[in-house]
Amino acid sequence: MKRKLLFWGMPAALLAFIVSSCASTEALVIKEQGAFSAGGAVISTEGNFDPHIPFFQPQGGQTRHGDHADVFYQIPVNAKPYSMVFLHGAGQSRRTWQTTPDGREGFQNIFLKKGYSVYLVDQPRRGDAGQSTVSAAIDATPDDQVWFTQFRIGPWPDFYEGVQFPRDEKSLDQFFRQMTPNTGDFDEDIISSGIAAVFDKAGPGILFTHSEGGGPGWQTAIKNENVKAVIALEPAGFPLPHEENSENPQNISMDDFVKLTKIPIIIYFGDNIPANETDIFAQNFWRMVLNAAKEWAETVNRYGGDVTLVHLPEISITGNTHFIMSDLNNQVVAEHIAYWLDEKGLK
Amino acid sequence: MKRKLLFWGMPAALLAFIVSSCASTEALVIKEQGAFSAGGAVISTEGNFDPHIPFFQPQGGQTRHGDHADVFYQIPVNAKPYSMVFLHGAGQSRRTWQTTPDGREGFQNIFLKKGYSVYLVDQPRRGDAGQSTVSAAIDATPDDQVWFTQFRIGPWPDFYEGVQFPRDEKSLDQFFRQMTPNTGDFDEDIISSGIAAVFDKAGPGILFTHSEGGGPGWQTAIKNENVKAVIALEPAGFPLPHEENSENPQNISMDDFVKLTKIPIIIYFGDNIPANETDIFAQNFWRMVLNAAKEWAETVNRYGGDVTLVHLPEISITGNTHFIMSDLNNQVVAEHIAYWLDEKGLK
Repeated sequence: MKRKLLFWGMPAALLAFIVSSCASTEALVIKEQGAFSAGGAVISTEGNFDPHIPFFQPQGGQTRHGDHADVFYQIPVNAKPYSMVFLHGAGQSRRTWQTTPDGREGFQNIFLKKGYSVYLVDQPRRGDAGQSTVSAAIDATPDDQVWFTQFRIGPWPDFYEGVQFPRDEKSLDQFFRQMTPNTGDFDEDIISSGIAAVFDKAGPGILFTHSEGGGPGWQTAIKNENVKAVIALEPAGFPLPHEENSENPQNISMDDFVKLTKIPIIIYFGDNIPANETDIFAQNFWRMVLNAAKEWAETVNRYGGDVTLVHLPEISITGNTHFIMSDLNNQVVAEHIAYWLDEKGLK
Repeated sequence: MKRKLLFWGMPAALLAFIVSSCASTEALVIKEQGAFSAGGAVISTEGNFDPHIPFFQPQGGQTRHGDHADVFYQIPVNAKPYSMVFLHGAGQSRRTWQTTPDGREGFQNIFLKKGYSVYLVDQPRRGDAGQSTVSAAIDATPDDQVWFTQFRIGPWPDFYEGVQFPRDEKSLDQFFRQMTPNTGDFDEDIISSGIAAVFDKAGPGILFTHSEGGGPGWQTAIKNENVKAVIALEPAGFPLPHEENSENPQNISMDDFVKLTKIPIIIYFGDNIPANETDIFAQNFWRMVLNAAKEWAETVNRYGGDVTLVHLPEISITGNTHFIMSDLNNQVVAEHIAYWLDEKGLK
C-alpha cells in the first residue's frame, strides 16, 4: 500500500523511468541464491590413514559422506513467508521443475515470479546428490519408449489425441535426456530424511512431489513440522494406518497417519486414465493409482484431514500427461495451485 | 551515461527511493534462466516396441538418449556480450561453482553480479547428466581423506598452515558431500563434444575449467570457435602436437594445436606446491603438473599463443587449495580474473 501511494504522487514519465530502471515485470529479482547438501550419512573404514601414500593406493581409516539431498535454492526479494520445496519422481532430477521439454518456464520460475522462495532438490542417490553409502550397478539398456508410454504421452509411437506435450523431435529429445539413474538403491526412509533436512533450512513451507516422490513426500510431512502443505502430482504411493489396511506395504502407525490429517493436501491427476480397463497397461496402472488416491483422500478426510483430489479432466483441464508441471498447459495448472494456496491461507 | 545524467538531476530522497525500489546492488536481476541438455548420443535395440506390454517386461525396439551435458543457465539484465561456461573437475558437479563449503558465494554469483551470463554444466555421465549409453559400476569405498589430501587442504588430518579453507566441521561435511560419482566411463571426447554443444547455445564466451575438466576443456576450445578464452584452474592435462612430444597421451594434430594459440588462456595454480620433492605424494604430484603447465605455456607461446601462467603464491596470494574458486579468498582470485578479462578485451 505504501509503495502504491508513493507511485500515485509521481509524474507519469518519472514512473515509467523507475519501472524501466528496475527489473521488468518479467525479470527475476533474486535476493539470495546458493546450494547446499542436506542430511545424509557417514560410513567409515577401520585403520589409520597415512597422507604420504599416493591417492591411487587403497587404504583404510577413511570416511565416505553420502545419502544427502542436493539443493539449489533461490530467494526472491520480498519473498512470501512460505518456501516451496520441490521433489522429483523416478528416474528424474530437479530438471523436472526447472523447465519444460520445449524450453518454456517450469514451476521454478513460475512460482519464483509469484514471490515464493524455491528449493530444488536432487534426492539422495540421484543426480548431483549421487554420493551414496552403498555400491550400485547402472544398466544402460534402452528404455525410452517404455517411459514415453508409462508417462502417458501416448502408446508409443503414437501421441494421445489432444495431449499437452509438444510433438517436435527436439522437445522429445530433451524430454528423454531428463532421465538420470539411481546411484544407490531407492530408499524411502533415506530420501524422506534428506528432504526433512531441507525443510530445516527452508523453514515453514509447501512440499511439491511428483510420482515416485509421493511416498517419501508423505514421510517428509510426518518427519518435519515445517511442511505446512503438500501438493502431490500423480503420487504413486499412499500410507495408511495398520487399523485401516493391514496389507498396504506403505503402512504407518496411527500417530504418524494423524499428522497427515493436520495439513492441507492437494493431489492432481492428468488425462487419459479411462474409468474402465483398456488394452494398454499404462492406462490401467494409473487407473489403479487414481482409485487408491480417491480411497486414501476419503480415509484421511474421515479422520478430520483436508485432502483435495483433482482429476484434471473433470474440471475441463484436458490432455495432461504424467508430467503435469511441464505439460503445455503448466501455467493453467500453476494458477489452479495458486488459487488453492490462497484458499488455504498459504499465499 | 544517460542514466547517470538522469540520476544527477533528482533530489536525493527520490534517488534513495528509486534505489530501494529496484534490486539492491546485492540482488541479482535475472532476465532469463532455465535448463537444457546439450549434445549427446542415442543408442537403440532391434525389434518392435509394443505399448500394450507392462513397463517392467523387457522389450526391444527402444532407444536410450545419453552422454549429453546438463546445463543450468542464468542471463542477467544488460548482460555482457560474452557468456561464461563452467566445467567442474573429477568427482565433482556444477556445485563446484555454485557456492563454497562455508556457504559464501561461488563464481556463479560473483560473475553474474559482474554482468556475465553463466552456464553451469554437469558433464556427460555425471550428476544430473547421469544418463549414459554405457553401463557402470559405482563403488562406495570410503575415500574422503584421500581427496582432502590430494586436493591440498592438508595432509589429513592436518590442515596446511594458512590454508584458505574453513576449519569448522560443518564446512568440511559440505565439502565432502560435493563429491558425486561417474555413471559411465570418463571419456574426454564425449565430454568435450557435450561442452562444445553448450557453446552452440551460449554463444561466444569464456570457458572455465577445473582440474580433470582441463583436458576436455582444451578439446572444447579446439571443437568450437565460440570459445574466446579459457580460464583453467589447476588443469591436469596439456595437449601437445606430435612434433613437440611423441609420448604425451594428450597428443593432438598441429592443426588443432594451432587453434589453442589463437585465444587468450590463463592458468592458475594454488599454494603448497613446493619447488622440491617432499614426503607427501600429493605435493609432488602437483609440482609435476605445475611444471608441465609451465612447459606447455612456453610451447604455446612459442607458436604465437597467449598463455599466462599464474602461480598464486608468486603474486602474494597464498594458502590456496586445489579448489581456488571456492577457497576463502575466492573474491580476490575473481578480481584477478576480472582484471585479466578486461586486459584481453573480454569485459
